[in-house]
Amino acid sequence: MCNCISTLLLKKAWSYQGLRKIYQKVNDRWEVCVSLSEGQFQQVSFVNGIATIRGGTHVDYVANQIASHVMGVVNKKNKQANMKLHTVKGYLWVFVNALIDNPAFDSQTKETLTTRQASFGSTCELSEEFLKKVSSSGVVSNLLSWAEFKLNKELKKTDGTKKTSIVGIPKLEDANDAGGKNSDKCTLILTEGDSAKALAMAGIGVVGRDHYGVFPLRGKLLNVREASHKQLMENAEIQNIKKILGLQHEKKYDSTKGLRYGHLMIMTDQDHDGSHIKGLLINFIHKEWPSLLKVPSFLVEFITPIIKATKGKAVKSFYSMPDYEAWKESLGGSASSWTIKYYKGLGTSTAQEGRDYFEDITHHKKDFVWADDKEDGEAIELAFSKKKIAERKDWLTNYQPGTCLDQREKRIKYSDFINKELILFSMADLERSIPSMVDGFKPGQRKILFCSFKKNLVKESKVAQFIGYVSEHSAYHHGEQSLASTIIGMAQDFVGSNNINLLEPRGQFGTRNAGGKDAASARYIFTRLQPITRLIFPKDDDVLLNYLNEDGQSIEPSWYMPIIPMVLVNGSEGIGTGWSTYVPNYNPRDIIANLKRLLNNETIVPMVPWYRGFKGSLKETSSKATGVTYTITGVIEEVPDTRLKITELPVRRWTTDYKEFLESMCPIPIKEKEKSKDKNKEKKKDKDKEKEKEKSKEPPLK
Amino acid sequence: MCNCISTLLLKKAWSYQGLRKIYQKVNDRWEVCVSLSEGQFQQVSFVNGIATIRGGTHVDYVANQIASHVMGVVNKKNKQANMKLHTVKGYLWVFVNALIDNPAFDSQTKETLTTRQASFGSTCELSEEFLKKVSSSGVVSNLLSWAEFKLNKELKKTDGTKKTSIVGIPKLEDANDAGGKNSDKCTLILTEGDSAKALAMAGIGVVGRDHYGVFPLRGKLLNVREASHKQLMENAEIQNIKKILGLQHEKKYDSTKGLRYGHLMIMTDQDHDGSHIKGLLINFIHKEWPSLLKVPSFLVEFITPIIKATKGKAVKSFYSMPDYEAWKESLGGSASSWTIKYYKGLGTSTAQEGRDYFEDITHHKKDFVWADDKEDGEAIELAFSKKKIAERKDWLTNYQPGTCLDQREKRIKYSDFINKELILFSMADLERSIPSMVDGFKPGQRKILFCSFKKNLVKESKVAQFIGYVSEHSAYHHGEQSLASTIIGMAQDFVGSNNINLLEPRGQFGTRNAGGKDAASARYIFTRLQPITRLIFPKDDDVLLNYLNEDGQSIEPSWYMPIIPMVLVNGSEGIGTGWSTYVPNYNPRDIIANLKRLLNNETIVPMVPWYRGFKGSLKETSSKATGVTYTITGVIEEVPDTRLKITELPVRRWTTDYKEFLESMCPIPIKEKEKSKDKNKEKKKDKDKEKEKEKSKEPPLK
Repeated sequence: MCNCISTLLLKKAWSYQGLRKIYQKVNDRWEVCVSLSEGQFQQVSFVNGIATIRGGTHVDYVANQIASHVMGVVNKKNKQANMKLHTVKGYLWVFVNALIDNPAFDSQTKETLTTRQASFGSTCELSEEFLKKVSSSGVVSNLLSWAEFKLNKELKKTDGTKKTSIVGIPKLEDANDAGGKNSDKCTLILTEGDSAKALAMAGIGVVGRDHYGVFPLRGKLLNVREASHKQLMENAEIQNIKKILGLQHEKKYDSTKGLRYGHLMIMTDQDHDGSHIKGLLINFIHKEWPSLLKVPSFLVEFITPIIKATKGKAVKSFYSMPDYEAWKESLGGSASSWTIKYYKGLGTSTAQEGRDYFEDITHHKKDFVWADDKEDGEAIELAFSKKKIAERKDWLTNYQPGTCLDQREKRIKYSDFINKELILFSMADLERSIPSMVDGFKPGQRKILFCSFKKNLVKESKVAQFIGYVSEHSAYHHGEQSLASTIIGMAQDFVGSNNINLLEPRGQFGTRNAGGKDAASARYIFTRLQPITRLIFPKDDDVLLNYLNEDGQSIEPSWYMPIIPMVLVNGSEGIGTGWSTYVPNYNPRDIIANLKRLLNNETIVPMVPWYRGFKGSLKETSSKATGVTYTITGVIEEVPDTRLKITELPVRRWTTDYKEFLESMCPIPIKEKEKSKDKNKEKKKDKDKEKEKEKSKEPPLK
Repeated sequence: MCNCISTLLLKKAWSYQGLRKIYQKVNDRWEVCVSLSEGQFQQVSFVNGIATIRGGTHVDYVANQIASHVMGVVNKKNKQANMKLHTVKGYLWVFVNALIDNPAFDSQTKETLTTRQASFGSTCELSEEFLKKVSSSGVVSNLLSWAEFKLNKELKKTDGTKKTSIVGIPKLEDANDAGGKNSDKCTLILTEGDSAKALAMAGIGVVGRDHYGVFPLRGKLLNVREASHKQLMENAEIQNIKKILGLQHEKKYDSTKGLRYGHLMIMTDQDHDGSHIKGLLINFIHKEWPSLLKVPSFLVEFITPIIKATKGKAVKSFYSMPDYEAWKESLGGSASSWTIKYYKGLGTSTAQEGRDYFEDITHHKKDFVWADDKEDGEAIELAFSKKKIAERKDWLTNYQPGTCLDQREKRIKYSDFINKELILFSMADLERSIPSMVDGFKPGQRKILFCSFKKNLVKESKVAQFIGYVSEHSAYHHGEQSLASTIIGMAQDFVGSNNINLLEPRGQFGTRNAGGKDAASARYIFTRLQPITRLIFPKDDDVLLNYLNEDGQSIEPSWYMPIIPMVLVNGSEGIGTGWSTYVPNYNPRDIIANLKRLLNNETIVPMVPWYRGFKGSLKETSSKATGVTYTITGVIEEVPDTRLKITELPVRRWTTDYKEFLESMCPIPIKEKEKSKDKNKEKKKDKDKEKEKEKSKEPPLK
């Protein structure tokens, strides 16, 4: 009976029409053939000529090899797929003909082989070529489309629907008519945070709740452009917006009829982060429903004044800085009789002002318009796609200072928004993260130096108090904690921190033990200007500097002019938009020598990085067009009793971390012996760890 | 055969010696008897006279009733026990004789009854009295000791052992001789945080690593006094200290021979939190190993100067404020020629200073000494036990200003530490949390008012900038964020916030929608003094106030003297040590009327709380010696179409939260209709929600 069935099945397998068959006679004992299946694993197999109609260990052995290869290919092609072995098997039809030593079966009818693989008496190693053929046989593309189908189905699960009521979305204030027959008249206002929601709520007290809903965004929306399926599915904000608007995955919209709201209005602060949030929302809609951006006045923004000038009862509002500057110019000297107030955040406006804006809503609303696929679509991708890094660099390089959106236009082209408004956010982000080549500072550091000069910080001051002074006098916006760590960083003087610390550390400013993370709280430590600082940044130069102005307050200069390039002395690190920076520290004496050569019209000599107090060595390990790579090595020596003694770690490898790293490699105690001056460290480790070289690579210098 | 076995077992059950048997004939059909077992559930049972030797549903039915009762009793007596039903059953021996309708068995031998309980045809409800007898039969105490045994076993699992090397504890710097034959000479220094560790590391550079180890504490240690088993087991810090010292659960120590270190040295900042940390460590050792505190010089502390006075090369260190004051006094006017520096944090000292302290370690080390069980033990419990709340109140009430530890003593009695040092922490905690009855302020609010007067804040200032000013001029230590919310809180004027806001809100300071949490960021909003503020706190009084001094800086007064009791006007809330406070808001007009009565020697009239702008009602619902309770009700009305219209919520019930609460009760849309002045709210809900009354209870007034 067995034989009859096996013959029949064999014939069926070989005669199956229309599907490609990949065959390999692996060796004397194994013969394998693969074809495609449609979601259910199928097999035909023989052991020593007996048809094992339920397969068994020999089939698993072969099928697993094939499936895991295919799985790898699929998961590489679609990183979201998260393909499992059993799914892949469902798409395979495997024929196996094997000779097995002393085969064992599950029952008398010999339907399933149960011999363990180790006892087969032979192996079946499929060739690369065979596996490659299988992957290109169509199984991969079947699986890819299955994966896509599954992922889409999941995304569709979170689709919104057009219905009149919606519950379970905290903080949503739904318009009364949303999702009903007047839904096209409804506008959903997305606000930047809860306080902006409060402003919008004051506003819709005027225009009514029938046609206006409000939903506050929590900070920045996800950049969905290359986000993973998982990120999208788990992002509560994106899921909520889909539900509130009734958006459906992959649907093409030529009107807003199918949606719960006819308009989406974005209302953000009048600052760079506000522009970024607008951009991220545009990016989200463009990626998921590009058709929607073409529906006229679907996406609109609500603008609020950036400056108000008051004189008695007269109030003038300005919606862009150039407008204000022009007005100020036109008044000549008499502008000073007006009181100027900056309205950078939506929260600056009172509830009454919010009501005033909404009373005159037509003047505060601007439509985004889609001019042309190429221009607008490409601009959005340029700003948000991970694939456009090079283009983004060009875009930023070609930025013209003074660029800004003409706020008098009623309609904003998407490309204009990207190229004239969003670009300012990216430039600001760059400025925050990449130091000026002139003075080596990022704005935070420059503000601190500015304030130490302004306060004439020659007598020591408690750092906590100095923080208060800096945030009062230099418009520092990023929180006390970040200010504290910047001040502490500027005063640190342990190996690997500053070569010349501009501030003096008085108290615990951190050590090499924990890379400075062991600095004390700002309220316990003191600092003052180092005497050398005013020699590097001469007082006489102060009048030459170009001081910036924030909201009418005169703050730090656009840059200082140190007498030597401080960016080389203390180095710098940072990651911005499009670019990042890494400058190691150099020896001020080398720099000065080169400066003298330069002044004398001599050729300058190449310099190598240098860290004050570092006892290890530094070697150039490669030199390319993009920069030079150095390898920094600590000091390690063998001591007679099969142990290693480490007396210096590479720069910016900190003792505590390094000890944990050593312990994790080999849990043998590390003894530290310290001499009285806490400078010479000895660590002993068993010799078998000798291979472990302490190296840290510095990124290429640019 | 069945009958033979059943008779035998029955005899065995009834004749079992020495154990109490509790018997109940529940009704005609059920007869139950219970005795004790020793960890394995036993049963003897009959169904219609057939011995069910493996029990079955009838036995489960009875045994579960008994076990769940017992389980409840055990878990109530020992909250840590976490007793499970199957464990309880293991301690029971149950006899059941039941008559069941048409019983079904698992097999021909009828060993197990399988009839479902619903088909028994009768019930067996055990009497209260019977269950009570069972609980007092010894099963409860057996289970309690089993639970204790199990919990102790778990705690023992985390015991340390005396061994020379120890790995896997991040940040530990182990002494080289710890756990070895010289372990009694070793000292483990526990420091308050990583920066203090850096100081100790500098110090042991001097005294050497052989006998000194360092381990940084991460903030405050758990109060272990009434901590749950789970909290203890999951507290990494406590487990680490046990491991580093080699401490064993429940062991009695009469020397430190069994430990990895002979001494435990605590090194904290010279401030109240530092005292608290010392106290928590003492509490931990006292609770777990009281014997250890009696071992001479096991627990020691490391002290650092609190003030250093410098004049040229002369340096004088002071270890307590009274010492410093006395010295200053002794110098007369000439003290001003010395430079004074406060060393409140360990981080204030430089590495060099750390080395100096350790060079002279005998002068910086103090032993804690156990004078007598009653005095010291009770003092520690007084400070940390949840059971000593009343005693703690007395302790704090009897506090004498000026109390402090005599720092010249070489040895500190535990009772002295608690009563003269730790008490200052508790007093400071109270001061931070409970407002002064004179001006109604907590110190943070007072600092803000002080700075608004000092800065003469009559022109509006950006809140972020004002924060900088306050932290520079008033020694505010608790972070910018907390300062921002205190300033915003003082300027809020929506219903339920201030009756008289002393600062003026210009911009979005929050609304009733989110209870003020929807205020904008401090860098977007502006404030200034309300004109009324200087009328309540007259400028002429400024010179009469007692201004405090922090580290040489003159700061806010101990209290202001408003012309009316502001603590009643704006109310107050807070939780401190031993006490908490809740004062509702009152009507300033009522207060003034009463003040006038008081001035005219008339009887003052009782006042009821009042919230400016609130349209609901307030009713006294009870009046006791401890205070009066009021119920505040919003405004709700029935509208014809089976709906409810809410136009006012109770005070401090915020709209967003309340809507979420309604939605969670019944997911039917809540529609909001807002009139143009955003004051009148209408909410409609289905009538079946009418029962839902909006009430909020105020705690009793004291």
